[in-house]
Amino acid sequence: MEKNEVKVMQKILRVNEAIAEELRKDLADKGVFYMNLMSSPGSGKTTLLENTAPKMSGNLAVIEGDIQTTLDAERVAKAGIKAYQINTGPFGGDCHLESSWVKAALQEIDLTGIDYLFVENIGNLVCPAEFDVGAHTNVLLISTTEGEDKPLKYPLAFRVSKLCVITKTDLIPHLDIDMDLLRSNIHKVNPDMKIIELSAKTGEGFDNWIDFLRKNKR
Amino acid sequence: MEKNEVKVMQKILRVNEAIAEELRKDLADKGVFYMNLMSSPGSGKTTLLENTAPKMSGNLAVIEGDIQTTLDAERVAKAGIKAYQINTGPFGGDCHLESSWVKAALQEIDLTGIDYLFVENIGNLVCPAEFDVGAHTNVLLISTTEGEDKPLKYPLAFRVSKLCVITKTDLIPHLDIDMDLLRSNIHKVNPDMKIIELSAKTGEGFDNWIDFLRKNKR
Repeated sequence: MEKNEVKVMQKILRVNEAIAEELRKDLADKGVFYMNLMSSPGSGKTTLLENTAPKMSGNLAVIEGDIQTTLDAERVAKAGIKAYQINTGPFGGDCHLESSWVKAALQEIDLTGIDYLFVENIGNLVCPAEFDVGAHTNVLLISTTEGEDKPLKYPLAFRVSKLCVITKTDLIPHLDIDMDLLRSNIHKVNPDMKIIELSAKTGEGFDNWIDFLRKNKR
Repeated sequence: MEKNEVKVMQKILRVNEAIAEELRKDLADKGVFYMNLMSSPGSGKTTLLENTAPKMSGNLAVIEGDIQTTLDAERVAKAGIKAYQINTGPFGGDCHLESSWVKAALQEIDLTGIDYLFVENIGNLVCPAEFDVGAHTNVLLISTTEGEDKPLKYPLAFRVSKLCVITKTDLIPHLDIDMDLLRSNIHKVNPDMKIIELSAKTGEGFDNWIDFLRKNKR
């Protein structure tokens, strides 16, 4: 990295952190539990939200982050979730969301009656982990199809998150995945990480996710 | 983006491009076909290489890019491929590889008798697409578990690649994926993209990948 680049990056991270703290406090004051969903592309973030909505009586809002398209916002809106789309394409196709963009989005969203706010971050296990978006809890999703080694290879995303949701458990019989090894790799990089295993398809384990949401309601 | 950051980024991209051109020419002169494998984490880049080795009589070399761990280099070395690991962790956990790092790695690798050189880029559908590593062909992998919408949501990775390898076709019966829609979305963002569909598990479609390698041998 060039010296110049390091200096600019430090400034960006400092500004990002300050706005993140502001958001964390504001949303707590408003009684909203704010989660940041991170994962690889296709791990099932949008599907998790679609399946959460019917169980939570319409008090969810989502800020969708994507480089391009409003596909995810359309999907969650159809499921009855208040949705707002951020597209990073116009700003150079950024690979993560920053707290200032969430702050700007929140100026457009009426949070009256909203108990839960989600940010669905850009599908990427690397960069989003470096930028605090001010959430009360970072939630990392990993699908059973991604292999046991991902916590070791992308440790920061696992370290900055409190909860790991392992998705697509219905596929386990068709995969060679060693679930014990995956769990132990998760706890190797983050010993306190809570793990919830579920299948949006069969509904298996979904109650644990709903319990997690209800227990954390402010 | 800050003005300063834009200027630094432009300089980085210019330097990266110059080294990329140099690598492209050098490796062509040496008769090595050089491919850059890009995908989400867990799409099957390492497994593709492991399964390619036994069919290609030991003339493969791989530069593995990871933030941390040498797990992938160990896997491909075990399969008989000459492997070199780049870890970006010490440089700030970078989310992509750059041409200068590949150039440095190549100073450590004896390419005598090597017909095919692969870079296994960091598992990330966003950032690697922005940095030309000088490959003759970018190859994008996407697994059947990732959904049909990925070409629309991560278009740059599909645009800069010539070949799309759709992996894990053995899982199709257990998924809700619409393969026609996936193919049509791929061709919507890159009309000329060649598609090879395969399963490393069953071997289905693997011959098409081997044919692709043989046809492009220099």
